[in-house]
Amino acid sequence: MRLALLGGTGDIGEGLALRWARDTDHDLVIGSRNAAKATRQADEYEAELTERGIEASISAGANDEAVKGADVVVLSVPPYYVTDTLEAVAETLPSDAVVVSPAVGIDTDEDGFHNDPPGVGSVTQLAAETVDNRVVGAFHNLPADRLSDLDADLGMDTLVVGSEDAKGLVASLADEIEGLRALDGGPLANAPEIEGLTPLLINVARYNDGLSHLGVRFT
Amino acid sequence: MRLALLGGTGDIGEGLALRWARDTDHDLVIGSRNAAKATRQADEYEAELTERGIEASISAGANDEAVKGADVVVLSVPPYYVTDTLEAVAETLPSDAVVVSPAVGIDTDEDGFHNDPPGVGSVTQLAAETVDNRVVGAFHNLPADRLSDLDADLGMDTLVVGSEDAKGLVASLADEIEGLRALDGGPLANAPEIEGLTPLLINVARYNDGLSHLGVRFT
Repeated sequence: MRLALLGGTGDIGEGLALRWARDTDHDLVIGSRNAAKATRQADEYEAELTERGIEASISAGANDEAVKGADVVVLSVPPYYVTDTLEAVAETLPSDAVVVSPAVGIDTDEDGFHNDPPGVGSVTQLAAETVDNRVVGAFHNLPADRLSDLDADLGMDTLVVGSEDAKGLVASLADEIEGLRALDGGPLANAPEIEGLTPLLINVARYNDGLSHLGVRFT
Repeated sequence: MRLALLGGTGDIGEGLALRWARDTDHDLVIGSRNAAKATRQADEYEAELTERGIEASISAGANDEAVKGADVVVLSVPPYYVTDTLEAVAETLPSDAVVVSPAVGIDTDEDGFHNDPPGVGSVTQLAAETVDNRVVGAFHNLPADRLSDLDADLGMDTLVVGSEDAKGLVASLADEIEGLRALDGGPLANAPEIEGLTPLLINVARYNDGLSHLGVRFT
């Protein structure tokens, strides 16, 4: 399967790329608005994997090139770039590609972090309104730094929400990452509660000594 | 310490009463709008504990009687009764009692359960606006049926949010329940994200075979 990680040059995209490269045989391609930046990052990921004795070939390109032939496209971009990014790849995005939205709108004040969703209720729903492709929300509640650290155990859950005929595929991709368990979050309308969990995880890490880079386990 | 559970005749109040009776030596009193109902329930809890070889004396009374002399008052009532209940006990509620709010506003549609908070942002904040007492939010994300089942292991977290000089006390009361870990959620302003987790837990249980009565572990 061919997985394109748009905005895979930072945040959660890095961890997903490294872990899919380590734990699966899928073809990975890193996309960025800046093709050179994508290539540089793919090279760094390959170098890190090589150091660990893992042979991996990660492709790279501008976002509109990266989505060509992709089965799954992960929008690992800040929430305010979701619409722009999807519009920029509209010409080359395969109509049967599954679009995965992990972004969350977060606001902050002196007390902590708070969910700041777009008007439609969630970033996942915003993505679904922007393209005709099947859209699945996933990977919203994963700690980026820990995901990128291949020495770190996960032992956590991710909720998969959205298109009924694509959720299973994305859940499988999540389950293939060691230590990650995919759970069904229901239809797109349930995305707001899932995205709201992310600021809560940051607040809990902030207010409790010894806890950081938290994920969640439903138990 | 004297703990009054208002509305302790159902939902989360039952589990808290049974577990505090089993796991601690605190004085427990069940309050209800209907004193006879409170007495009946306290008798049932005592009978269940006796069957398990646990000697416990649980008092009961109308809400305004139950709060007298209480160190901690838990508002185990539906969210739309929080204000009423606090107003009904205003005359007898000790001014230094800590009020604990576990209620969550939840709405439902065909897709799932959704957070439906009051205008101030959360039920915990609503309670804090209704009384001058110190208010702490806690126990929002616990599954009531599992909490009431003394054979069930918990192995889950509860977030404690609100009054800085009362959170520690409520966290201790939570930690005294076997299998429960209290974590600091920060100030009252962070209550909305905590209350939003409850409908999410119900959705996850609904959409995943084999999962039910879910709690959450931050990991």
